[in-house]
Amino acid sequence: MKVGKFLTLEGVEGVGKTTNLEFIANYIKLAGQEVVTTREPGGTKIAEKIRGLLLDHDDESLCDESELLLMFAARAQHIKNVIMPALESGKWVVCDRFTDATYAYQGGGRHFKVADISWLEQFVQKGLLPDLTILLDLSVDIGLQRAANRSDPDRFESEKKVFFENVRQVYLDRAKAEPKRFGVVDASDPLQQVQKNIAVYLDKILLDE
Amino acid sequence: MKVGKFLTLEGVEGVGKTTNLEFIANYIKLAGQEVVTTREPGGTKIAEKIRGLLLDHDDESLCDESELLLMFAARAQHIKNVIMPALESGKWVVCDRFTDATYAYQGGGRHFKVADISWLEQFVQKGLLPDLTILLDLSVDIGLQRAANRSDPDRFESEKKVFFENVRQVYLDRAKAEPKRFGVVDASDPLQQVQKNIAVYLDKILLDE
Repeated sequence: MKVGKFLTLEGVEGVGKTTNLEFIANYIKLAGQEVVTTREPGGTKIAEKIRGLLLDHDDESLCDESELLLMFAARAQHIKNVIMPALESGKWVVCDRFTDATYAYQGGGRHFKVADISWLEQFVQKGLLPDLTILLDLSVDIGLQRAANRSDPDRFESEKKVFFENVRQVYLDRAKAEPKRFGVVDASDPLQQVQKNIAVYLDKILLDE
Repeated sequence: MKVGKFLTLEGVEGVGKTTNLEFIANYIKLAGQEVVTTREPGGTKIAEKIRGLLLDHDDESLCDESELLLMFAARAQHIKNVIMPALESGKWVVCDRFTDATYAYQGGGRHFKVADISWLEQFVQKGLLPDLTILLDLSVDIGLQRAANRSDPDRFESEKKVFFENVRQVYLDRAKAEPKRFGVVDASDPLQQVQKNIAVYLDKILLDE
């Protein structure tokens, strides 16, 4: 049985997920909870190998159906071997991206039907949903500028601006449809303000304990 | 548009798929058709990497959902980059295992629902079906004995006898349900007789041209 809370962090490239994932994990630890931080796609040895297939450029192009199925294959592995064991032992799990990213990237970006993604979600997750999802929202222009200053772009980071506009829109639509689960934070604010805003959502879920 | 014919070869471990795949390919070539031989899981660079995840033993155990999704992820890649281009250019494709193997191994062996496999089949194949499927049928005892004389068993070959009994039964049930598509050949016969029996099915489909 799930005992710990399951938190996910979402957003397009360059919104500051890495820095804020660390902030969230520390904040929860300071509140007295044991925390596991992890990421998708990946989080287990096999799932990280699948991540390589998904993110690396290959001389063979990865088709959209394969991309979507690999996402959920990695997720099945991640849930079974990392997320559920941690939640069942009472730990909190903070995950850098989860299924909202699939709706955003493969749904919004690649135009897969919501019903198809939803079928796979149910097949793999059997009802597991995040208790809280922090969406770091940022205009695509600023996000891409920030991301451009990092290392070589992976398969997704190489997409065009319109792809990320669609991704962002799906994220915002999902947040609007599930206001209780989502906390939307403006990632264009100074970092201190961003983390203050994240903390409001964390306090609320910590208070639920 | 699909122009060439799509042939698949199925059967449990030790039935002689490798030898007979070569026989089938040569037989069709002699009849004047260009032939591409390939295999599943695999058949493309990325799909062969997925094959590695599926067949190799890993210190992390691969969960059943991930196994099923990886099968179809590899298949999507294989269809898009190898099978359909060949069929569209008028070549015949002879494939060592295809979706019947998924119904047999993941359905019969791992107990996934037919409806779930069927959903994934439709999602990935969009109606593509083999024109002819040769099922090499053999008692599990003899098959496993034959397979034992080969190299180290892979993840599937390491399964117990009851797993392969279930696999064989699903193969036979599917053949019975689709007698027009399937040619069932008794693989306990001497090789020459096996190939004579396969040739009867090949002559029929070559005559359809």
